[in-house]
Amino acid sequence: MDYTVAPLEKLCEQFERLPGIGKKTARRLAYYVITRQDNMAEKFASALMEAGSKIRYCSVCQNLTDSEICAVCSDTGRDRSVICVVEDAGDVLAFERTREYKGLYHVLHGAVSPLDGIGPEQIKIKELMARLADGTVNEIIVATNPTVEGEATASYISRLVKSMGIKVTRLAYGIPVGGNLEHADEITLSRALEGRNEL
Amino acid sequence: MDYTVAPLEKLCEQFERLPGIGKKTARRLAYYVITRQDNMAEKFASALMEAGSKIRYCSVCQNLTDSEICAVCSDTGRDRSVICVVEDAGDVLAFERTREYKGLYHVLHGAVSPLDGIGPEQIKIKELMARLADGTVNEIIVATNPTVEGEATASYISRLVKSMGIKVTRLAYGIPVGGNLEHADEITLSRALEGRNEL
Repeated sequence: MDYTVAPLEKLCEQFERLPGIGKKTARRLAYYVITRQDNMAEKFASALMEAGSKIRYCSVCQNLTDSEICAVCSDTGRDRSVICVVEDAGDVLAFERTREYKGLYHVLHGAVSPLDGIGPEQIKIKELMARLADGTVNEIIVATNPTVEGEATASYISRLVKSMGIKVTRLAYGIPVGGNLEHADEITLSRALEGRNEL
Repeated sequence: MDYTVAPLEKLCEQFERLPGIGKKTARRLAYYVITRQDNMAEKFASALMEAGSKIRYCSVCQNLTDSEICAVCSDTGRDRSVICVVEDAGDVLAFERTREYKGLYHVLHGAVSPLDGIGPEQIKIKELMARLADGTVNEIIVATNPTVEGEATASYISRLVKSMGIKVTRLAYGIPVGGNLEHADEITLSRALEGRNEL
């Protein structure tokens, strides 16, 4: 006999679709939300609805925002001559945490990955090119991930942007600060060696 | 300057309230839900709303259900003389997976834990006692967790039930099947020794 409870199963399914959440964890989370005494399910649902309806992509940099143009793009204090190109919205936060970068961003929402059927048209490269037309930008920092897909995306963008006569830079590769040389993989170490600086 | 997006922060907060989900994971999950192209936020929200409004406790065994009496309690094929008492709704599923147990359940929704201010009145012990009044039940299997709280709950229930002249049993302690003796902790091993059976 089947003892499953339909609304509960549906909720488990939704939790299971989240990255890194397996069948058992999904069930545990669903049970947790449902058995909380403080209307958690309702509050969670309304947070989702609100985020789902209000959040959209900034019409300039494609970052997540609840207004037409995001807070970074509309901040007059930022350097408009540099654009840091990242794969995901979360990467913007990582840069903001450094408190070093004062330029603008561009969020691609993915990376070129032919195996997954993601070509340059599926990510926000066209929107990046449109931003370069008026000549205010004189440097593009390509900060895609140091993966095969990130590298492919970086070289694709680099080719396009260089042809417009704009400087393109890539984040430095090397050993992470606080890391241990013994644990560094050989590719990272040889990149760190290549990029060595005079003291 | 503050670049946070209010609806996004609210959603991150909700994810962060889930057990085992930290600040960074919460943000990753929130971004994932929002940036999906298939209306995931909306579907997730409606699954939560539906579960939150339809799911309640079975009026007999206190398990989660979407009807007045859950599927197990209303199944006439189950043995009504045995009740297996568990802490959480998830434990019922664990027993059902064994395909061995054919009796009924009782979900306590917690365990006695004086340090957290959870006394016997905060969990569903009163409801269990009410089920024993009509004399159909002749065995209570106490299947609370093998923790300090679970043990305290088990001995509390055992005292109450025994005074009604009903048999009370507890799950066997011992080494897990497929486990390695070398890795068994000393308490488990001494319990396994105590409970040894003749071959």
